[in-house]
Amino acid sequence: MRLMLVAGTTRTAEREGLSAAGATRDLLVHTPSADAEILTYGDTVRAPVTPVSPDGCPTPAAVTRAVRELLGFDATVVDGGLARPTGAPTVSVGAAPGRDIGEADPVQTAPGAFAAARQFGRSLPDEELVVGETIPGGTTTALAVLRALGEEWPTSSSLPENPVELKERVVGEAFESSEIAPGQAAHTPELAVRFVGDPVLAVASGLVAGTLEGETEVILGGGTQMLAVAALVRHAGVVGPLTLATTSYLADDVPELADATAAHDVDLVVTDPGFGGGDGFAASDPGPLSAYADGVAKEGAAMGGALHLAERAGRLDEVTTATLDVLARLRSDDGP
Amino acid sequence: MRLMLVAGTTRTAEREGLSAAGATRDLLVHTPSADAEILTYGDTVRAPVTPVSPDGCPTPAAVTRAVRELLGFDATVVDGGLARPTGAPTVSVGAAPGRDIGEADPVQTAPGAFAAARQFGRSLPDEELVVGETIPGGTTTALAVLRALGEEWPTSSSLPENPVELKERVVGEAFESSEIAPGQAAHTPELAVRFVGDPVLAVASGLVAGTLEGETEVILGGGTQMLAVAALVRHAGVVGPLTLATTSYLADDVPELADATAAHDVDLVVTDPGFGGGDGFAASDPGPLSAYADGVAKEGAAMGGALHLAERAGRLDEVTTATLDVLARLRSDDGP
Repeated sequence: MRLMLVAGTTRTAEREGLSAAGATRDLLVHTPSADAEILTYGDTVRAPVTPVSPDGCPTPAAVTRAVRELLGFDATVVDGGLARPTGAPTVSVGAAPGRDIGEADPVQTAPGAFAAARQFGRSLPDEELVVGETIPGGTTTALAVLRALGEEWPTSSSLPENPVELKERVVGEAFESSEIAPGQAAHTPELAVRFVGDPVLAVASGLVAGTLEGETEVILGGGTQMLAVAALVRHAGVVGPLTLATTSYLADDVPELADATAAHDVDLVVTDPGFGGGDGFAASDPGPLSAYADGVAKEGAAMGGALHLAERAGRLDEVTTATLDVLARLRSDDGP
Repeated sequence: MRLMLVAGTTRTAEREGLSAAGATRDLLVHTPSADAEILTYGDTVRAPVTPVSPDGCPTPAAVTRAVRELLGFDATVVDGGLARPTGAPTVSVGAAPGRDIGEADPVQTAPGAFAAARQFGRSLPDEELVVGETIPGGTTTALAVLRALGEEWPTSSSLPENPVELKERVVGEAFESSEIAPGQAAHTPELAVRFVGDPVLAVASGLVAGTLEGETEVILGGGTQMLAVAALVRHAGVVGPLTLATTSYLADDVPELADATAAHDVDLVVTDPGFGGGDGFAASDPGPLSAYADGVAKEGAAMGGALHLAERAGRLDEVTTATLDVLARLRSDDGP
């Protein structure tokens, strides 16, 4: 079992009000690099900041790391267009940071990165792979990519109030400036990603396509961005068993998720980490994690996949305490 | 506990008769990339070949991987100047492949990589770190670097017969073409590495210096190249507890190792994996590993450090079988 985190950036995230994956817009660009370090080391190393939402909700990477400490699985970070240095080791498949999707041709590296990630995935010796993503602004690019494939599914948001109108305006701009119209990239997923998407979608879909072709089982750990990855994989003509493992917070936010996964021959599993407290969970105070129960963040950095692994191992009730332990270590070096 | 493998290249290895870290001279350049993959995945992924010596002795990376499978520690690869793609995730500190040390200024990236690796090492949250290397031709550059520091210690060889005269000729050429004379880089280790060394020595010594400064304990896993790393660290003025953990094959080859480590305030531990059979070891037939007992390879890819961890955990007697298991998997996809 190996967990792969595809970490990258799109400048689409710099638009005001689109993402909660950082305390400020200036800090968003560091989030994927920091998430990669937290997954790898349980601490930031080169990244200057521990990612939190504007109101202090901790990054889902802390949850994924906590589960990793509980279960001891391998984790590998793939560079899906990082824009800031990371101290985490990364696999390169030729992705570069994505430009704003309002620009023409914002992800020129997408076809090459898709192909390289696919070949890499085919060669992996693991029997099971969990794949997740970290890219601020990624639900907006995922919405545009789904539409380019001719699919109409809503995407979630890291904000408690999904800025749907703003997203629609950005996606509209993307199609205006690009060479493709909605539905026109149905059989060319790498072009959907190139013209209206982001580099993480290119790398993750290539990786998953190749991994399935190599007969490794794949669990997509995440929400509607990983749904877009599943759609891209199916539009590339790749069959094989796929599971989307997401959080209850995400599933509650997107009731269409069951239909959307079924439409792509993807099994859906939903895990509730119990950060809101309640029956069946350890009595530990979830502290800042209670923001998840209020609809902040919801998913990301393979959190849903990690929670599924914890539940499968019968250790879901240890996740809150383990995550609080990771957070305490993260805070301890932020200084007074 | 984390094991860090610094993987890189020097074109010095292309000289005929200098290294056994590949079946042919053309294949040597792939060895560090393949070793990184074997440590990470237990298999090659992008590398086209499983490294063996000209007479078929398997790479020590298989031993390190086997111990990792037994004990389950984290492993991280740092790019010390790789010249071929690897599917292993790597941390970048700005190192580039080294040129032949017969050329003037063969490792221009050395000072920058030393500084970046040092800063990276300082930030690591681990409590204990094992550091090793994989670079064909590295004992020759280590010999030159020790001499640049004003130190006369013999270095070992991956070949059963150490090509001492050839090495001396190459080291002589290095000083002829460079701006420094033996002993002249005593207080500027990064210049020793830049003018007569290789990028792996720059990265490994920077990493170890920073890690010690961050109050993480360091075990150097390897032979005379890691001795050169210790010397570089001490010449950088960095104190702190260092241990060199090596194999009995290497220690037998270099009787001066005890004096050399003592001279640098480095503890020495020697572990015999029992690949030659004999008392106290499991009766499993060591197969191709018996070449180690004949003096091939001897060390590399943090093997000595991994063996020390296995011994500390009381599981040294499982290493032969575990390594043969790794080798069987490596062979299974070489095809008919």
